Amino acid sequence: MTTARRDTYTPETLLSVAVQVFNERGYDGTSMEHLSKAAGISKSSIYHHVSGKEELLRRAVSRALDGLFAVLAEPAAGRGRAVERVEYVTRRTVEVLIDELPYVTLLLRVRGNTTTERWAMERRREFDHRVAELLKAAAADGDLRADVDIRLATRLLFGMINSLVEWYRPHHDSPAERDQLADTVVRMAFDGLRTAR
Amino acid sequence: MTTARRDTYTPETLLSVAVQVFNERGYDGTSMEHLSKAAGISKSSIYHHVSGKEELLRRAVSRALDGLFAVLAEPAAGRGRAVERVEYVTRRTVEVLIDELPYVTLLLRVRGNTTTERWAMERRREFDHRVAELLKAAAADGDLRADVDIRLATRLLFGMINSLVEWYRPHHDSPAERDQLADTVVRMAFDGLRTAR
Repeated sequence: MTTARRDTYTPETLLSVAVQVFNERGYDGTSMEHLSKAAGISKSSIYHHVSGKEELLRRAVSRALDGLFAVLAEPAAGRGRAVERVEYVTRRTVEVLIDELPYVTLLLRVRGNTTTERWAMERRREFDHRVAELLKAAAADGDLRADVDIRLATRLLFGMINSLVEWYRPHHDSPAERDQLADTVVRMAFDGLRTAR
Repeated sequence: MTTARRDTYTPETLLSVAVQVFNERGYDGTSMEHLSKAAGISKSSIYHHVSGKEELLRRAVSRALDGLFAVLAEPAAGRGRAVERVEYVTRRTVEVLIDELPYVTLLLRVRGNTTTERWAMERRREFDHRVAELLKAAAADGDLRADVDIRLATRLLFGMINSLVEWYRPHHDSPAERDQLADTVVRMAFDGLRTAR
C-alpha cells in the first residue's frame, strides 16, 4: 500500500481512465501499454492496483451491473401493481444509464471473448430477464395490451433504453435533462407517442 | 468481362460475402486478403469486379440506403395525415431492416473513417431527419402528445428500430414474423404498451 501511494491514482481514478480507453479502442484492442499511456503511469504502477486489464473490466462492468440490480431492490420496484413497478424500473434504468454512462456503455459492448465478458453478458441477461418477468406479470394483470408479444416488447424496450449510450451526450450535469429523458422513455414505451385516437 | 466470367462470382454474390466479412471483422479490420479468403477467389479476381474494398462498402451501404429512401417515396408515405404517414414509414423501415438485415447492420455500424463512411453517415442522418420532420408535422397537427420532445422521441424511435440489427435473427424467411415485428414496433411507439388507463 505504501508503494501504491507514490502515484496519485486510486483504483477509482484508474478505473475511470481504463473505461474510457476500453470504450474508445474496444476491450480486445486495449493493451496494458495503452492503459499505461492513457493513465500517464507505468505498467508496474498499474499492477500495484490491479492484477491486469481483466480485473479493470470486471470492476467496470460490476459498477454498471450493481447500479442496475440495485434498482430492482428499491422498494418501489417491489410493491404495487406490476405495471407500476415496471414503469418505475424503466425510469430508474434510464437514470442509471445516464449516471453511469461510460460503465454501462462498456457493459453493453462486451462480446464474450473472456470469462469476465461472458459473466457480464450473463448478468446482463439476468437483469433483462427480471424486467421481462415484470412485463409478463403486468400483461397477466391485463395492464398491457394483449396484441403485443411480451418477449418482443422486452427486446424493443431495452433497444430503446440502451440506444442512449450511442447518442446521448450529457450537457453538464443536468438533473432536468435526466428527468426529461427518463419521462420520455416511460411515456413513449407505455403510453405511446399518439394522443388518444 | 470475359475474364470476370471465369469465376462464378457476380458483383452481387461478392457483395453479399463482403458484407458478411465487414459485419464480422468491422470494415476497418477487413483487408482484401480477408475478402479473398472468404470468397474463395484471388484478390485479382475481386479486382475484376470492383476497384477495392471501399467500392464494396459503397455498394453495400447504398443498397441499405436505397431501400430506406424508397420507403419515403412510396405513395402512403406522402399522403394523408402526418401521423399516419410516420406510422407507415416506421412500419416499412422495420420491414426494410428485416429484408436487408446484413446491409442495414453494416450501415448502422460505419464510423466515419473514410469518405464513403462519412457519406453513408450523412445519408443516414438525412433519412432520420426526414422522419423527424414527419414527426414534427404530426405533433403540429396535434396528433402526438405535447409533453414529449420530438427530437428525443425521434432518437428513441430509431433506437428501438435499429436495435433489431443487434438481436433479431430471422427464423427462415417468415412473412408472419416480419409483420408481427413491424406491428409491435408501431404499436409500442405510437400507442404504448399499456392498456387504456
